[in-house]
Amino acid sequence: MKIAILPGDGIGPEIVAQAVKVLNVLGESFEMETAPVGGAGYEASGHPLPDATLKLAKEADAVLFGAVGDWKYDTLERPLRPEQAILGLRKNLGLFGNLRPAILYPELANASTLKPEIVSGLDILIVRELTGDIYFGQPRGVRECPDGPFKGQREGFDTMRYAEGEIRRIAHVAFQAAQKRDKRLTSVDKANVLETFQFWKDIVTDVHKEYPDVALDHMYVDNAAMQLVRAPKKFDVIVTGNMFGDILSDAAAMLTGSIGMLPSASLDANNKGLYEPSHGSAPDIAGKGIANPLATILSAAMMLRYSLNKQEQANRIENAVKKVLAQGLRTVDIYEEGTTKVGTEEMGNAVVKALA
Amino acid sequence: MKIAILPGDGIGPEIVAQAVKVLNVLGESFEMETAPVGGAGYEASGHPLPDATLKLAKEADAVLFGAVGDWKYDTLERPLRPEQAILGLRKNLGLFGNLRPAILYPELANASTLKPEIVSGLDILIVRELTGDIYFGQPRGVRECPDGPFKGQREGFDTMRYAEGEIRRIAHVAFQAAQKRDKRLTSVDKANVLETFQFWKDIVTDVHKEYPDVALDHMYVDNAAMQLVRAPKKFDVIVTGNMFGDILSDAAAMLTGSIGMLPSASLDANNKGLYEPSHGSAPDIAGKGIANPLATILSAAMMLRYSLNKQEQANRIENAVKKVLAQGLRTVDIYEEGTTKVGTEEMGNAVVKALA
Ligand SMILES: CC(C)[C@H](C(=O)O)[C@@H](O)C(=O)O
Ligand SMILES: CC(C)[C@H](C(=O)O)[C@@H](O)C(=O)O
Repeated sequence: MKIAILPGDGIGPEIVAQAVKVLNVLGESFEMETAPVGGAGYEASGHPLPDATLKLAKEADAVLFGAVGDWKYDTLERPLRPEQAILGLRKNLGLFGNLRPAILYPELANASTLKPEIVSGLDILIVRELTGDIYFGQPRGVRECPDGPFKGQREGFDTMRYAEGEIRRIAHVAFQAAQKRDKRLTSVDKANVLETFQFWKDIVTDVHKEYPDVALDHMYVDNAAMQLVRAPKKFDVIVTGNMFGDILSDAAAMLTGSIGMLPSASLDANNKGLYEPSHGSAPDIAGKGIANPLATILSAAMMLRYSLNKQEQANRIENAVKKVLAQGLRTVDIYEEGTTKVGTEEMGNAVVKALA
Repeated sequence: MKIAILPGDGIGPEIVAQAVKVLNVLGESFEMETAPVGGAGYEASGHPLPDATLKLAKEADAVLFGAVGDWKYDTLERPLRPEQAILGLRKNLGLFGNLRPAILYPELANASTLKPEIVSGLDILIVRELTGDIYFGQPRGVRECPDGPFKGQREGFDTMRYAEGEIRRIAHVAFQAAQKRDKRLTSVDKANVLETFQFWKDIVTDVHKEYPDVALDHMYVDNAAMQLVRAPKKFDVIVTGNMFGDILSDAAAMLTGSIGMLPSASLDANNKGLYEPSHGSAPDIAGKGIANPLATILSAAMMLRYSLNKQEQANRIENAVKKVLAQGLRTVDIYEEGTTKVGTEEMGNAVVKALA
């Protein structure tokens, strides 16, 4: 089994190194190959997603991704900026199904900005469509405004769109995920305003017929943003489009106060996937050895579960992470009095030790 | 001065009645005329925004709006559903500038789901563009997918767009609002993905040149959703587009835990405006006499301030509301032990008394 390792920028290389260390002690024989991506890709060959990196990602059975982005690339024109790499990988690999759990570990209940009774035991899963919507819709650009009171001025424009098949396949992913959990799915739309999401709602409702054991409800995106703040534990699985999912999954992650703990998976139709922490490249703390590697290590666990079909190894890693938390080890982002502050590498080593 | 009174559906009539009562004791001579809107408009004349209602709103100096919507209209086709009335009013009256304060009254600090230290003293203002973006962009609809892997299938689609002048005018509103507050403005975009919002960012940056006394920063919408949960007090004024503003302003309102307290203003280029509570029509509690009328009463205060140029009367109302809170009066939505539970009408009467 071949794993493409794409560390990226900022803290990416540090945290990915810990996940690789963990993968190496599982007693499996993975072939791992590393390639530059994001700013590192740009430095290496003038493009955030170098051809060789894309080729490696395509050939591999799974991709372990760190994070991309650094302020120093902010002045590049858009197609050359680091985040284009992640958009390019999603599109080229057909990674339409993004799974983003928002889990609050009991040991970290204090990390949340929300009251403990609102978030303790939080365990929700956001299923975000990742290759459609306004992220990729054409046409888009800046043009002369064709009509209305601003006719003749410049205007920026984009196209939101979802085809029936795109909605069906992500709905199947979400219903099946709900079947393995509490069997409740909330489809988030803006059907009261957008044609795309009235269509979305209709198709999700239709797919529901195949999953009578799952309870489906529909919620407008503005209300969903409110309910995530008001009573997040009422959700089980949320499914939504690319744009709304971008916003809601980040809000949900932040509810836990410990985004340094949250992994993610982006899957294609055959369960090949890209795995990355939900947090970003944090250039401000890069190279200091203090970043939390657990989201990346847990992303490696998701990779074992979804793409490499090694459920037991996935469980082993997840249990090892729980163990180090129970031991009181904390990187600075989740540190509180009475616990033991450790660096990136110590944390990685602790997980390795807990695996033994 | 003529005020159009549009109570709407659900709790709308009850809460608007209290605001009208308050307006009537100010000692001013307002001409007030009432018309049906939303579901009530549909019942009265087959359309959520009857011609006569629109005409009245156009002629008036300001519009006081309750709320629209009820489950019983969910099965109507979209153009006939209650919320089309509010979209129609915004568009026809050119109400592009939506001001949504999110304020946490000290007396209500416990109402929030967030920890007191995170939200106590919260006072942020969201400026949402209200007549552009993907809400109104053409073309939109359901069509045959013209290209790509889903070619030939049905697809839903919408157009996001912002013309230069549309961005400039809302930016001016936001910079001027910031000048009257803490002089900090955060423009929320998704410039890393959307052409519309790269353009938005460029224009806002340009308008900034006219407001050197205001500190401007730019934030991606996903990050803004996170920061609202993590450290909402760091914001002063936020400006964003119609779609992102819909989501973020509701999230911000919910941070306070007391959305029944939050007013809003929607202004045109000449400060004519529509004023409505930030909460909805709450059909589940309609007719029970328990709805909180304070958001509507505070919306009337905003109307006096922005459209009717009666600053002092606006202050009087706001102080009266503070007084009833200090007296410990609470409707059920903000009730806690040790305070006095009152109904809609009692609360309205208490404000009237506090004004004396
Ligand atoms: C970097 C950016 C393009 C990306 C997105 O918007 O999808 C990020 O926010 C994410 O959620 O992975
Ligand atoms: C009812 C709906 C069309 C409306 C909107 O999306 O603008 C509402 O959510 C609001 O924020 O006023």
